[in-house]
Amino acid sequence: MPVDMKKTQYIASVDAGGTKILSAIINSKNKIIARVKKPTPANDSPRAVINRIIECIEAAIIEAKITTEELAAIVVGIPGSLNPERGIVYLAPNLGWKNTKVTSQIKKYFGVPTFIENDANLGALGTHRFGVGKGFKNLLAIFVGTGIGGGLIFNNTLYRGKSFAAGEIGHIIIDPKGEKCGCGNYGCFEAVASRTAITREIKNAIKKDKRTVISKLTNNFGLIKSSILAEALRRNDKLTRKVLKSSAQTIGMVIGNLSNLLDLNAVVLAGGVIEAVGDFMLPIIKKSASEVALPQNFERLKILNSKLADDAALYGGIVIAKEAGVF
Amino acid sequence: MPVDMKKTQYIASVDAGGTKILSAIINSKNKIIARVKKPTPANDSPRAVINRIIECIEAAIIEAKITTEELAAIVVGIPGSLNPERGIVYLAPNLGWKNTKVTSQIKKYFGVPTFIENDANLGALGTHRFGVGKGFKNLLAIFVGTGIGGGLIFNNTLYRGKSFAAGEIGHIIIDPKGEKCGCGNYGCFEAVASRTAITREIKNAIKKDKRTVISKLTNNFGLIKSSILAEALRRNDKLTRKVLKSSAQTIGMVIGNLSNLLDLNAVVLAGGVIEAVGDFMLPIIKKSASEVALPQNFERLKILNSKLADDAALYGGIVIAKEAGVF
Repeated sequence: MPVDMKKTQYIASVDAGGTKILSAIINSKNKIIARVKKPTPANDSPRAVINRIIECIEAAIIEAKITTEELAAIVVGIPGSLNPERGIVYLAPNLGWKNTKVTSQIKKYFGVPTFIENDANLGALGTHRFGVGKGFKNLLAIFVGTGIGGGLIFNNTLYRGKSFAAGEIGHIIIDPKGEKCGCGNYGCFEAVASRTAITREIKNAIKKDKRTVISKLTNNFGLIKSSILAEALRRNDKLTRKVLKSSAQTIGMVIGNLSNLLDLNAVVLAGGVIEAVGDFMLPIIKKSASEVALPQNFERLKILNSKLADDAALYGGIVIAKEAGVF
Repeated sequence: MPVDMKKTQYIASVDAGGTKILSAIINSKNKIIARVKKPTPANDSPRAVINRIIECIEAAIIEAKITTEELAAIVVGIPGSLNPERGIVYLAPNLGWKNTKVTSQIKKYFGVPTFIENDANLGALGTHRFGVGKGFKNLLAIFVGTGIGGGLIFNNTLYRGKSFAAGEIGHIIIDPKGEKCGCGNYGCFEAVASRTAITREIKNAIKKDKRTVISKLTNNFGLIKSSILAEALRRNDKLTRKVLKSSAQTIGMVIGNLSNLLDLNAVVLAGGVIEAVGDFMLPIIKKSASEVALPQNFERLKILNSKLADDAALYGGIVIAKEAGVF
């Protein structure tokens, strides 16, 4: 291998979330060799968030003991709508971005090819190439956390749609008479089955004097942490079981529906809720999906919990850099 | 062009429906030059239906004044689940077929390459290459008739799924508390918005002594014909308007949902109900979809009524033959 080829053997892969920014350096063997995590600046300017991403990448470069010259690419995952070709984020409420040029600013700083991609798309790519989704031609990744996101792989390729906005599974209406969603509609999937919905159901039950160990585990009912839900499950809390069961049934119904539409090879479940209580939820999800899916569509459909946790989106960056031919 | 190439310049394209079998001969300029329609044998053996298809093709060959030797391929569209690679139909209730070998029997008779494909898939291909769906990279075709079927085009290619069972849009559950569907579940799209559902709602209203011109237009309430619905609309029948509006709103909601998931370029509506009363339904469908879809996903999404009627599936046969390299 010529010397100049050896120089660019790493990528920086970034997951820019609403609470933390996670940056990793990945080597040519697809291994994460360094990781840096910093809090996302809250209520600050769009530029402040970009600066924090840059800081995070710099810190990861130092941590990995490499130089910027050895970087083949930077890939940044963003929770929002964007145009990866134009390098612009249309809307990422959790980062305070609206029509924000992201790629050019990061590229200007490092002088390295820079790409942005929706974080759920990156997660789907990561799990498809490096996780439990490996080898499945048509795959849906569902991320259950504060909201619900999705990423689609058709014919082993990321499916983006006409405006790079495919995968918005959280805003499929599953019960027109259901709870109001942040998007303004009623009964969206994420308004019924996300951690936000789980929190709401538990709070409502507590208000009605239902007994639950959760009242002892936390005072913060703004958004009940997934770890609290896991602890309540361990303590066999009846209310928690009931609420999680209901969420799992809804997730299963959506999977059954989409299996009818898309005849998928696999559905991979990920995100904070699944990481914490996925083992409890998975059998319920599978049963519920089996009741909805047509036999031919359900046969050979794999429903799996991701094992990559936060790393899925980071690994997805590898695929983006490889597809662009720079890694 | 060598003489032996000129010999095979036609295909026979067949739409094998539950009530009629429609066979066409299509020339190398993609024009239908002959058409033959025969009733589907009811309650007869699987073989009787295959024989009727063969009769239909033979009659179309005669009608077109060509010979079997000039046929490059036969393509048969089937309302059911099947494996086009193995030439077997798993289940087509309206034809009385279950695990029926179709391709081999027709091929044996004519000695011509023979293909089977799901009829909704053929319809989607037909509208995508020769109809209003032309030029749209990612397209969903929805067929609203006795049931509701769908066909998906992603990246300009028919998407079949892992078991060739993609597109079963009629069995997406849209209201878990809704009417029972033929598949055994409750609130499937086709149980809520198809002609069967429209008929049920009108019958229920008549039972409750609601006034409607439909009571004068037909005595047959088994399944109210689309032409009767069209006539009732022309006479400004309040009940018909109400029921069709409700169906259109549901169709719009499903389109909005799937636009969020798939960020489609176009949705093409077809099938008996749309052919008859699509002009009335389309504006309601569009409005309802716009209320559900996220702005980025809805922007530039085209929702169109097909103009090809029954010919869509026939034209789809051209694409199958071309993809197989025989036409």
